[in-house]
Amino acid sequence: MIERDDYLGRVNDALKEFVPTGNDPVSLAMNYSVENGGKRIRPMLVLEFCRVCGKDNEAALPFACALEMIHTYSLIHDDLPCMDDDDMRRGKPSCHVKFGEAYALLAGDALLTLAFETVMKADLSEKQKNDACLYLAKCAGINGMVGGQTLDLMNEGKSVTADELKKTDSLKTLALINAACILGCIAAGADDKMKDAAEKYANGLGLAFQIVDDILDVTGDSAVLGKPVGSDETNDKSTYVSLLGIEESKRTAEKLTNDAKDALNVFGKNGEWLKNLADKLLNREN
Amino acid sequence: MIERDDYLGRVNDALKEFVPTGNDPVSLAMNYSVENGGKRIRPMLVLEFCRVCGKDNEAALPFACALEMIHTYSLIHDDLPCMDDDDMRRGKPSCHVKFGEAYALLAGDALLTLAFETVMKADLSEKQKNDACLYLAKCAGINGMVGGQTLDLMNEGKSVTADELKKTDSLKTLALINAACILGCIAAGADDKMKDAAEKYANGLGLAFQIVDDILDVTGDSAVLGKPVGSDETNDKSTYVSLLGIEESKRTAEKLTNDAKDALNVFGKNGEWLKNLADKLLNREN
Repeated sequence: MIERDDYLGRVNDALKEFVPTGNDPVSLAMNYSVENGGKRIRPMLVLEFCRVCGKDNEAALPFACALEMIHTYSLIHDDLPCMDDDDMRRGKPSCHVKFGEAYALLAGDALLTLAFETVMKADLSEKQKNDACLYLAKCAGINGMVGGQTLDLMNEGKSVTADELKKTDSLKTLALINAACILGCIAAGADDKMKDAAEKYANGLGLAFQIVDDILDVTGDSAVLGKPVGSDETNDKSTYVSLLGIEESKRTAEKLTNDAKDALNVFGKNGEWLKNLADKLLNREN
Repeated sequence: MIERDDYLGRVNDALKEFVPTGNDPVSLAMNYSVENGGKRIRPMLVLEFCRVCGKDNEAALPFACALEMIHTYSLIHDDLPCMDDDDMRRGKPSCHVKFGEAYALLAGDALLTLAFETVMKADLSEKQKNDACLYLAKCAGINGMVGGQTLDLMNEGKSVTADELKKTDSLKTLALINAACILGCIAAGADDKMKDAAEKYANGLGLAFQIVDDILDVTGDSAVLGKPVGSDETNDKSTYVSLLGIEESKRTAEKLTNDAKDALNVFGKNGEWLKNLADKLLNREN
């Protein structure tokens, strides 16, 4: 069993093992972006859901890494000039600034591909790997994360409603967080009751996460965030803050966080770590 | 059993079913690029290898489509301004010219993701689908096709040897052709002797295919090719033709084609269709 205090270390070690160590610019770019990691929320969710569903989360480590690879690829492509054109990511030059656009593009492609290779390396049953691969692909593709990025682009410069924004964010951010929680359940062979709880938790957590992101883009400290603030306004993007104001956005994020925590009651005392995570993400500064 | 005369039609029909029909620009871009199809060589190889290995190739259709999706995504990303910057593809505006760079980027990402989703939809055993997923990911990623694209970029403006060029092309073109042949074998539950033959055939066919591509870039008719000729020279790219000359390149392609055909003797008379395919690709004009 991987202990909670070891999640970050073990995920980072495993990522190092799965990502190739070649000296070519694309391998270097893959490592650069994976190592410039954030909070590793998605892999942690995989490990923790496997744990609270009652199984040894050691076997879920490849699933956890696959989630982080897909998250990292999406950031590399999102930062490209033809997308958000962000020069900085977590306080460092973004991948294409460091390695050039062509190599950054390929590094993203390679990480997405590697994610599915990595799912297949888990020491779990064929059925579990199969289910994980299918679920992950659905959540990452045109009906999930990529669909959200598409809506996000389509919304640019348009006035959108809160409902439209919710749909965009549901796909863009929530789909992958949902995949993380469910892949943890799949690795544990969890029953439908547990999967339902995981999905409800993911819904609250994921949407709250995006709202806090929007708030930090206005109220945050760029040194703490590792990227410039105010980019949403510069890019003429509708956000929860621009639609609801800061106070109402905060209230919404709080309510969603509480919903997420309530969903965990099925796990009893075992759900405490995930509840704390939800609170931490609500009150984060970057 | 899908009959040989029906390969093209059935592949096109199945692709239409698997690719989403949304009205958003990314779904439209995915369909545009998939429909602007070439010879569908890779999906045909999947179906035919399943057939010559003695199984009903109907079940291999999702694998066949997955190969074509990955091939299509690679072309979309290859055509982007930061890569080869090609405005035309098969006589029509390339994806980013038609839909813009951001949507083209996402269409490529979505097709790559959809490929793995599609593999999982095959009516085959969990083990067969997982083997196919793992093999496909390896062939498409940094140690396969993306690795070849990386070497290709690194070679630009440099003088490379024929051996270096062979390595680049082996990864860039051959890896996916190899995946096609092997996935057909996996769908058929083929033995190692058959898989060896498939791999040898893929090696000869794939490298010959790339050499003929290089030759056509010099001697071809841009109207027949559907893209401008001479782009390798313009891009200062080393090719077989620039290294060996046209005559020696032709001889090499012929020898490789014969090697490919020889590998098929294990299949007896059943291998004729694949031998004819090798000849057709050697003598093609686009």
